[in-house]
Amino acid sequence: MQRREWLRAGGLAALGAGLAGCAGDRHADPAAGGGSAEPVRHWKMVTTWPANFPGLGSGAARLAESITRASGGRIQVKVLAAGELVPAFETFDAVSRGTAEMGHGASYYWKGKAEAAPFFCTIPFGMNAQEMNGWLYHGGGLELWRELYAPFNLVPFPAGNTGVQAAGWFNREIRAVEDLKGLKMRIPGLGGEVMARLGATPVNLPGGELFQALQSGTIDAAEWVGPYNDLAFGLHRVARYCYMPGWQEPGPTLECIVNKAAFDALPEDLKAIVEACCAAVNDGMLAEYTARNQQALEQLVEEHGVEFRTLPEAVLAALRAATDEVIGEITRRDAFAARVWTSYASFQQRAAAWHRMSEQAVYALRG
Amino acid sequence: MQRREWLRAGGLAALGAGLAGCAGDRHADPAAGGGSAEPVRHWKMVTTWPANFPGLGSGAARLAESITRASGGRIQVKVLAAGELVPAFETFDAVSRGTAEMGHGASYYWKGKAEAAPFFCTIPFGMNAQEMNGWLYHGGGLELWRELYAPFNLVPFPAGNTGVQAAGWFNREIRAVEDLKGLKMRIPGLGGEVMARLGATPVNLPGGELFQALQSGTIDAAEWVGPYNDLAFGLHRVARYCYMPGWQEPGPTLECIVNKAAFDALPEDLKAIVEACCAAVNDGMLAEYTARNQQALEQLVEEHGVEFRTLPEAVLAALRAATDEVIGEITRRDAFAARVWTSYASFQQRAAAWHRMSEQAVYALRG
Repeated sequence: MQRREWLRAGGLAALGAGLAGCAGDRHADPAAGGGSAEPVRHWKMVTTWPANFPGLGSGAARLAESITRASGGRIQVKVLAAGELVPAFETFDAVSRGTAEMGHGASYYWKGKAEAAPFFCTIPFGMNAQEMNGWLYHGGGLELWRELYAPFNLVPFPAGNTGVQAAGWFNREIRAVEDLKGLKMRIPGLGGEVMARLGATPVNLPGGELFQALQSGTIDAAEWVGPYNDLAFGLHRVARYCYMPGWQEPGPTLECIVNKAAFDALPEDLKAIVEACCAAVNDGMLAEYTARNQQALEQLVEEHGVEFRTLPEAVLAALRAATDEVIGEITRRDAFAARVWTSYASFQQRAAAWHRMSEQAVYALRG
Repeated sequence: MQRREWLRAGGLAALGAGLAGCAGDRHADPAAGGGSAEPVRHWKMVTTWPANFPGLGSGAARLAESITRASGGRIQVKVLAAGELVPAFETFDAVSRGTAEMGHGASYYWKGKAEAAPFFCTIPFGMNAQEMNGWLYHGGGLELWRELYAPFNLVPFPAGNTGVQAAGWFNREIRAVEDLKGLKMRIPGLGGEVMARLGATPVNLPGGELFQALQSGTIDAAEWVGPYNDLAFGLHRVARYCYMPGWQEPGPTLECIVNKAAFDALPEDLKAIVEACCAAVNDGMLAEYTARNQQALEQLVEEHGVEFRTLPEAVLAALRAATDEVIGEITRRDAFAARVWTSYASFQQRAAAWHRMSEQAVYALRG
C-alpha cells in the first residue's frame, strides 16, 4: 500500500466507530435465548499507532474485532489511534490509570518507566520472533513481564511481532563507524542508546511523525519497521538508502496491556477470550509481515529504485560492542533488569544452539 | 521428559475426563445471571497422537481446554487419543462423517484422500513455520485448504507447528545416497515418496508405534519430530545416529479439523472462539517446541551421548532432485494440486528473497 493509498483508505481517520454501542446496554445473547442481564463492557483500546496503520494498527483493529466478536458483544472494544484520546507515548499511563481499559504498543517505549521494559519487546542482537515467543510463553519471560508491570496496574500480553526489521533509512552511505557520528536518527529502545555510544543523537518519535521529520530535516535518518510499513509512510521519498538487517530489532514483540482492575473484574470466560485473541494476533501479525514485506520489497526495488544495502562488518562489530556496554550498565544499576537479562540471555544462548542445527540449517539449504 | 517419565505421567491413559458433563445439560452462564436455555455442546476431538504426548497431544489438550474455557463451557471439548475412539489414521474420516465433531492431526497423513493435502502441512525443501503462516493466513493458502476439504465436510484451521524437524534416527551412518537403499524407514508425507525414489522403503506408522517398530527391527530408521519428542519416545535407545536438519519437514503445520455441519451450527461468537483458540495454539505450540527442543538436545547429547550428524551434501542434492520429480508428477496428474503448488511455490520464492535479507541475515550475525 502506498502512502497516498493508505491515506485515501482513511489511514488517519478515527477507527472503530460502529463497534461501540450505547453506554448502559444490557447484553442479550440471541443464541442463549435472551433474558441475560450482564452489562455490556465498552472498552477503549488506545494505541501508539496511526489509525489502521498496516500491520500494527490493523493488528490492533483485528484484536479489538476478535474480542468483540468472540465475546458476542459482551466486550465491545473501540480502537483509538495515537492522539485521539491520548498521544502515542501516553498509552502506558492511560491504561495504567484506567482512562482506557486496554492499549496496544511496544514495551520498549516505556524504558523511562522501567529499565527492564525493552527486554520484552526487542533488544539489539537479541532473539527473533520465534525465540521471543518461546521465551515468553515457555521460558519464564511472560511471568517476569507480568511482575514488572503489576505495580503499574497493567497485565501485559504478547500481541504481535513484525519479524526482523530494517536497520533504517539514511540520506548518506554508512561505510564506517565515523558515518554515524552526528547523525540525528529516530531510533527507540536500546538501539537508540547503542547509537548514542557511537556518536549519533537518537530521538524517539511516534511513527506518524516520521515522514515530516525526515522531509523537513529535523532528523537525518530513521528506522521504523521494514519494507511493508516504510513504503506505507513513503520513507523512500525522503531518504535514499535502506540498510539491512535490523540488528537493533531482530523480532520485536508488540504488547497488549490491560488495566488490571478491568481484567480482574472479567468472568473467567472473558479472561480466556482476551488471552486467546491476543495469542491469535501474536500469530497473525507476524504472518501478515511475512506476506507483505516481500511484496513491498519488490515494489521498493523495482518501482522506486531503492538501494538496499548491508551494514559493513566493522559497523556491526562496533554496534555489538556498544550493545554489550549498554546492557552491562542497565543490569548493574537495576536489579530487576538483571534478573530479566539472566533469563533472556540463557534462553537465547540455548535457542541459538538448536536453531543453528534446525532453522538456520534449513535456510542454508536454500543457498 | 523421558519416555518412562512420560508414561508415568499417564501418557497413554485417556485424557480429558472431567471436561465433559452430562449429555443434555443446559448452559447457565453465572455471569449472565442464569436463565439461559442454550444446550451444552459436548464435542469429541479425535487425534492422531498418543494421549497428552508432549507438544502435539498437549497442544491438542490446550486447544480443547481453551475452547471449553473461552466458551464458558458452552462447548465442552473432550480429547481422545489415537486408538481411543478411532485409530490415528481414521481421524479424518471420523470427523468427516461426524463421529467426532473435531480432530487434531497433520494434513500430510491424508494424501490418500487428496493429492494436495500434504502441501498444507509441509513438503520437502519447502517453507518454514513463519512462512507457512504467512502463506496460510495472508497468501491464499487457507482458502485453498478450505476448498480442498469442503467436499469432505471439513473446515480446517492451522493449529500448531513443530518448527524444523530432525531428518531422523538411523542405525547406520548415511555417508552416500547408496546408504539409503533398502532402508525400511518410517517417514510420512511427500518425504516418504522422495525416499522411495532413492531406494528406501517408506512406511507410515502412528507415533505411538515407533519405538517398538524400531526395537523389534520391523523398521531400520524413523523420523518422528525432533529432540523434544524423540527423547519422550526414547528413540535414542533404539537407534544410534540422529541426522539434521529435517529437509523433509522444514516447518509442518498441524491441523484442527471441524465437522462442517457442527461448525456451521455454531452461533457467531462460538465460531470466533474456535478460530481464535486454533490461532492461539498455532502460536503457542511452536513456542513450546522452541523452548523444549533446546533442553532435550542438551540432554540427548550430554546424558545419552547421542551423535547428531549432518546429511552429506550429495545426499541432500539427491533428495532435492527426487523432490522435484515427486512434486512434478503430483502436479501433472492432479489439477488442484497444481493450483496449490503454483500459489505455494510463488509465495516461498518471494518469502525466501525477503528472509535472505532479514531472518537469515540475523541468524548469520550470530556466527
